[in-house]
Amino acid sequence: MEPAENPPWLEGPLTSLAEAGDPLAGRLASQLSFLLELDRAKQVLRRTYLTDNSRRENDAEHMWHASLAALVLAEHASEEVEPTRLALMLAVHDIVEIDAGDTFVYDARADKQAREKEAADRIFGLLPEDQRELFCSLWTEFEERRSPTARMAAAIDRLLPLLMNRAVEGRTWREHGISAEQVFSVNASIADGSPRLWHLARLLLDEAVADGVLAP
Amino acid sequence: MEPAENPPWLEGPLTSLAEAGDPLAGRLASQLSFLLELDRAKQVLRRTYLTDNSRRENDAEHMWHASLAALVLAEHASEEVEPTRLALMLAVHDIVEIDAGDTFVYDARADKQAREKEAADRIFGLLPEDQRELFCSLWTEFEERRSPTARMAAAIDRLLPLLMNRAVEGRTWREHGISAEQVFSVNASIADGSPRLWHLARLLLDEAVADGVLAP
Repeated sequence: MEPAENPPWLEGPLTSLAEAGDPLAGRLASQLSFLLELDRAKQVLRRTYLTDNSRRENDAEHMWHASLAALVLAEHASEEVEPTRLALMLAVHDIVEIDAGDTFVYDARADKQAREKEAADRIFGLLPEDQRELFCSLWTEFEERRSPTARMAAAIDRLLPLLMNRAVEGRTWREHGISAEQVFSVNASIADGSPRLWHLARLLLDEAVADGVLAP
Repeated sequence: MEPAENPPWLEGPLTSLAEAGDPLAGRLASQLSFLLELDRAKQVLRRTYLTDNSRRENDAEHMWHASLAALVLAEHASEEVEPTRLALMLAVHDIVEIDAGDTFVYDARADKQAREKEAADRIFGLLPEDQRELFCSLWTEFEERRSPTARMAAAIDRLLPLLMNRAVEGRTWREHGISAEQVFSVNASIADGSPRLWHLARLLLDEAVADGVLAP
């Protein structure tokens, strides 16, 4: 394990802990370095607005919301999923955006994958190796969409901003000139995780078009 | 189950889903009502500042941060704890503050317990009964501090703001005139969950006093 870099006010106490003979002082140094880094996710803004329309949501808030949505919506997955793994997957799925930035779902960028892989190596690399592997495996499983849990996580990750955006009368869609066709096309993969949630989303989007909130 | 109250743009699609014969439409209505309510935790401000000193942290960000801290710090608990239950407990522990407001740890308020119990009844009461019980049990276990998992959760809940506050040179302590004696006394219970984390915190606080960041 490479020595973790921590700010001076933390490095001193960690060194004293190691000198006092604590065998886990090195692991704790790595773990705290990772946890301090996570604080930056609170400054990564998404396109979604809070349902009170006051400001844009950030990644930390989104990961928390999605993680709890996992616990309560897991039963709607088309295949059996493990609710706690689903929750943990969503709690970590956007950490890479600390370095790579948020990618708007309607704005495909060719280098997204490479930038996020590099970010995962750096940020999860702050952790002791066993924990690095846990975080990497959760993130990689989510990205690959090969397991039922990953497909359900992706469905929740799309459904939440759709609901929030409807709550503020489609503000994000309007600001970015997104049409109903784009919204239906990008979110259709919700069905891969949960046909029920996609059924609901389609009904909601149909009404949004009928109400003039989403451009046909 | 009482019928969940949802905004009109969601009530319509949910009714259509029920009319289409979906047997879980009622559960989904309750679950979405709860998830939309959770959005308000993003507006409950804590006393803690982000480590970049730009603004105060909110409850959603804090619960996310604490939940991931649980995953990486669980091994430092003095008794064996289940890391995922610890993470889930911290992901839900401040939801009641949506109604009850944040209580500053240095500012004891006699009615905190009653207000939070009322909030738990209302907010978790939005969920279908089985899920209400899961959320209530996580929150109650945290509040009672009787299990090793709850004591470790409380330790992490105290350690994180302590680190964040040190990162911004004790801004919260200074703004509220908190002395070292108060900080040591309020945070000593970190030792109930993890003597190692409390050892580190004491070293850090000693240096903070020596550096003039915390008033003796």
